[in-house]
Amino acid sequence: MRLSRYFLPLLKETPSEAQIVSHRLMLRCGMLRQEAAGIYAWLPLGLRVLKKIEQIVREEMDRAGAVELLMPTLQLADLWRESGRYDDYGAEMLRIKDRHERELLYGPTNEEMVTEIFRASVKSYKDLPKNLYHIQWKFRDEQRPRFGVMRGREFLMKDAYSFDLDEEAGRRAYNRMFASYLRIFSRMGLKAIPMRAETGPIGGDLSHEFHILAETGESGVFCDRRVLELPIPPEDVDYDSDLSGIVKQWTTLYAATEDVHDAARYEAEVAPADRMEARGIEVGQVFFFGDKYSRPMKAFVTGPDGVDRPAQMGSYGVGVSRLLGAIIEASHDDAGCIWPDAVAPFGVAIINLRPGDAAVDEACAGAYAALTKAGKEPLLDDTDGRVGAKFAAMDLIGLPWQLIIGPKGLADGVVELKRRATGERQTLSLEAALKAICA
Amino acid sequence: MRLSRYFLPLLKETPSEAQIVSHRLMLRCGMLRQEAAGIYAWLPLGLRVLKKIEQIVREEMDRAGAVELLMPTLQLADLWRESGRYDDYGAEMLRIKDRHERELLYGPTNEEMVTEIFRASVKSYKDLPKNLYHIQWKFRDEQRPRFGVMRGREFLMKDAYSFDLDEEAGRRAYNRMFASYLRIFSRMGLKAIPMRAETGPIGGDLSHEFHILAETGESGVFCDRRVLELPIPPEDVDYDSDLSGIVKQWTTLYAATEDVHDAARYEAEVAPADRMEARGIEVGQVFFFGDKYSRPMKAFVTGPDGVDRPAQMGSYGVGVSRLLGAIIEASHDDAGCIWPDAVAPFGVAIINLRPGDAAVDEACAGAYAALTKAGKEPLLDDTDGRVGAKFAAMDLIGLPWQLIIGPKGLADGVVELKRRATGERQTLSLEAALKAICA
Repeated sequence: MRLSRYFLPLLKETPSEAQIVSHRLMLRCGMLRQEAAGIYAWLPLGLRVLKKIEQIVREEMDRAGAVELLMPTLQLADLWRESGRYDDYGAEMLRIKDRHERELLYGPTNEEMVTEIFRASVKSYKDLPKNLYHIQWKFRDEQRPRFGVMRGREFLMKDAYSFDLDEEAGRRAYNRMFASYLRIFSRMGLKAIPMRAETGPIGGDLSHEFHILAETGESGVFCDRRVLELPIPPEDVDYDSDLSGIVKQWTTLYAATEDVHDAARYEAEVAPADRMEARGIEVGQVFFFGDKYSRPMKAFVTGPDGVDRPAQMGSYGVGVSRLLGAIIEASHDDAGCIWPDAVAPFGVAIINLRPGDAAVDEACAGAYAALTKAGKEPLLDDTDGRVGAKFAAMDLIGLPWQLIIGPKGLADGVVELKRRATGERQTLSLEAALKAICA
Repeated sequence: MRLSRYFLPLLKETPSEAQIVSHRLMLRCGMLRQEAAGIYAWLPLGLRVLKKIEQIVREEMDRAGAVELLMPTLQLADLWRESGRYDDYGAEMLRIKDRHERELLYGPTNEEMVTEIFRASVKSYKDLPKNLYHIQWKFRDEQRPRFGVMRGREFLMKDAYSFDLDEEAGRRAYNRMFASYLRIFSRMGLKAIPMRAETGPIGGDLSHEFHILAETGESGVFCDRRVLELPIPPEDVDYDSDLSGIVKQWTTLYAATEDVHDAARYEAEVAPADRMEARGIEVGQVFFFGDKYSRPMKAFVTGPDGVDRPAQMGSYGVGVSRLLGAIIEASHDDAGCIWPDAVAPFGVAIINLRPGDAAVDEACAGAYAALTKAGKEPLLDDTDGRVGAKFAAMDLIGLPWQLIIGPKGLADGVVELKRRATGERQTLSLEAALKAICA
């Protein structure tokens, strides 16, 4: 992408409404624009990161055997009356009447709808296990939306739903998602810690929240710091195998949110030097809730014994739009964002120090073509402007590499290459720079 | 994908509510499930086609220089009061109040919001031209939703918005989208005809609708049949060049919807043998409306002369979800769908005639691995079941190729390869079959 043709409305001033760094940076970088309280437009740069995150989630869900569908944003109120949650859900549910006065709602989650889809066609244990997921916009009418995408009202969530014949198989499904979540967050450069947690309005008695440690996190968390060193399941982990060892490994060391924190157990189990009391950003949560929805909604499957029983279900959420904020909270400096390679909106910034200079333009065009061909998705700053402002803008948006090409360097046969994360700068030939970026 | 692990709830009976073939087939193929009137869940097979269509639209928008962002589904009523459309829009607009009694609406289109985004940062002619697009769910509260995705209420639309300094540049933007649309529909295997059309609630005095001819189309159309033979702009068309020749070529021959049909002109201009009166499915519409939104909403840009003037705008819609229906209407037979390669949910069905037979399983697994590696996205039917039912199911979902592998053939060193579109069957070695599919 050439910057002169892009839409990157950087803000010079930090908007006063933004209280945390991720919100400030997303506004300043021209990634996000508020359209109403807790409702945002994703500007081009922000959308690119959102798509990268979404794709990592999708790849890992597919790898774990989940199947993607897409449920609509609006749902019938009557569906939620079947489970009994329509009245329970309270003011966070956005309730709507259409032109014929039919009651709809903007889905805050999809347990009811996916159970309805499942029960319409699956009748036999032979069709199990099933895990259906979608990545769709949700709405929760928060009393006080704040912190940008951290607590928005219209937000993007991946939610998966597992269906099994019995509790043992249901727990295997839970374990698959647990292992998959470890991989998802790790691929984004995050250290996510599964914590024992409350189940809230989803229900059930088994649940873990995945938290990223950050000072600006909304939850207090308590854990054994050795949990930060545990290994992530490899890419070729066999999701058909017994994954209970991985789950056990990750849930033996103490880790709990303040809602379920057990101070006595914490002090008994965790050596003082390993105790960590911190703030966490919740980026995912997994639930096993058995027949909470399948029984009232009559989603029954016939077992090999000929007996019908309600499907054993779990649900598994990832806060896709919130993850943008969490990644920035975890990876930034005073100059701006520092994107991990896997989710960077562009792989490299090419900074043309003298647009209009034929040699510089030509070198930039050559680098742009080579990096595009190599799949590095370059952003070429071909605009006029003060060099200092160009550097500051590229530091602000935080692409992993900056390739700086100017007339003086070219006369000496060299360019400059900067790694954003470390600030390290090298002066080298263009060819060597391209090689380093593509390594 | 292995069918045993997929979620493909085929219907044996044709649902009585489905009046047109695309709606019937989408339900029977397990692509779609109605969740409320005009509101659908996209089941896995349907979602795969939707994503393919979306990606073609995205690639062609990017090629034409448009930049993708993503605006939210919900909008503030006050934004629509700025343009004066809040009261004009009528009962099709879904109006919502949140917990604080603030007035929101589910966006039916985005002229106001994109104008607000534009005016917040673009102030100078130097930043023009700009074309911003998104692919987002919209809602129009149709009085009588019907025909499945053809006239749904929650639907997926690509909408692009161009901003230019003067009318001449605005018309160049219009021409770029016009040419891009010709490419978009052609890539999906469709013959779309641009027709002079009414501008309706979007406004302006220049507009074309793109129609696919089909008996079940909702609009009456009149055209010179020679328009069907006109050339599509090539992949390397230069969007920076003057495209008025392409637009002129496509708009000189008579083509108009019934709303603006001019019978006298039609009879004067079109030879009787070339007259075609048919039904059309509208799959896209382009508008140029000048300052209709930019003037009341004060989206002004400063020209090189230092004078501020309202941006000249156009908007450009593609009915992404409707296109699924249009493609099926244009490409099916009595046995089911016939997907054009570019939008097929999977590239090839591998039909295992004897699951559990070691040699057949092994041959199928080998073909599956080879076709996956070649990017052909195979669907492997590894389920038990009557052979006749398996063939019927694969004809129904209509993947471009069927690779049929059974014990008798394998004993003779051969498999069967069927092309869905022609019904042509060949008996050949597995190696030759893979080569033919990948050719």
